[in-house]
Amino acid sequence: MKALKERILRDGKCLEGGILKVDSFINHQMDPVLMKSMAVEFVRRFAGERFNKIMTVEASGIAPAIMVGYLLELPVVFAKKKKPSTMDNMLVTSVFSFTKNRAYDVCVSKDFLCRGDRVLFIDDFLANGNAARGILDLAGQAGAEVAGMGFLIEKAFQHGGDMLREMGIKVESLAIIDSLEGCKITLRD
Amino acid sequence: MKALKERILRDGKCLEGGILKVDSFINHQMDPVLMKSMAVEFVRRFAGERFNKIMTVEASGIAPAIMVGYLLELPVVFAKKKKPSTMDNMLVTSVFSFTKNRAYDVCVSKDFLCRGDRVLFIDDFLANGNAARGILDLAGQAGAEVAGMGFLIEKAFQHGGDMLREMGIKVESLAIIDSLEGCKITLRD
Repeated sequence: MKALKERILRDGKCLEGGILKVDSFINHQMDPVLMKSMAVEFVRRFAGERFNKIMTVEASGIAPAIMVGYLLELPVVFAKKKKPSTMDNMLVTSVFSFTKNRAYDVCVSKDFLCRGDRVLFIDDFLANGNAARGILDLAGQAGAEVAGMGFLIEKAFQHGGDMLREMGIKVESLAIIDSLEGCKITLRD
Repeated sequence: MKALKERILRDGKCLEGGILKVDSFINHQMDPVLMKSMAVEFVRRFAGERFNKIMTVEASGIAPAIMVGYLLELPVVFAKKKKPSTMDNMLVTSVFSFTKNRAYDVCVSKDFLCRGDRVLFIDDFLANGNAARGILDLAGQAGAEVAGMGFLIEKAFQHGGDMLREMGIKVESLAIIDSLEGCKITLRD
């Protein structure tokens, strides 16, 4: 998606260790007009699929997910990284974060992820695919199907996308980073 | 706001200890069409004010905040509950959560909250007002001004709204709960 790629090249910052900082327009400060345009692009790319629910993981997936949900008029569920004290009846899975070098729990209420659900998972980043795998596990526990996954930015060199596509999942990423070597952002055409 | 009040009475659940659960349409599963309608109502109520930025706190403030930001075409900044490893140059404040009975840090990058900013703070709940006070502290540190605060639901019996209004802040809540006594939801007309 042209507008996103241009914005990454203009405002993205590359840190040591394969980290791309996009915190001026995606995951700390957010550009809501770009966010809506990206949601429109997801609607276009998943036009042939049938969903009844959008899912994401808190916190930076929420903004793109709510925009997609708004356009499609579908409920949006965000999985939580901590089990809330006021919630029981939860499905839980463990996700390992390479950025943070530790595992954390991700959970969702059984009331909002159910047998027969067809889920479109939306998130800001696809890297190793561990969060995505966590969602697949939660969906499996619930008897739901993840019928598509949409990411704003895919770091192709971390191969989570390869794994998900090999599993037969329809994966759409609006910008694909082939390399951050030497702190140079190389985007796929 | 009529649609929100009706939804609270229909789908809200009251738990012991003054807790209102709205996790089927606001803070776990979200209704994005209602979210947009609530954002429109904030735009209407703050029509006389001038802002250059929307702020919220992760995670459940993000959805209403991004909708308001989208309507007003303003950047949206969400304060984080943990200092990210890839971020320095942060402003930090401590917020005490009565629900969780512990204090947690809330932080924002100095790049995105600056001297001269006029901020509209948006959040899902106003109870004791501790998160709101944290945002006021961050704004004070930055030399920014919080020119308005909008909440989806105010629990009036926890008096955060009284405190903020006494400070001279324009506070708008789309639904005001006067009491949850006996696990009965009493909404203000």
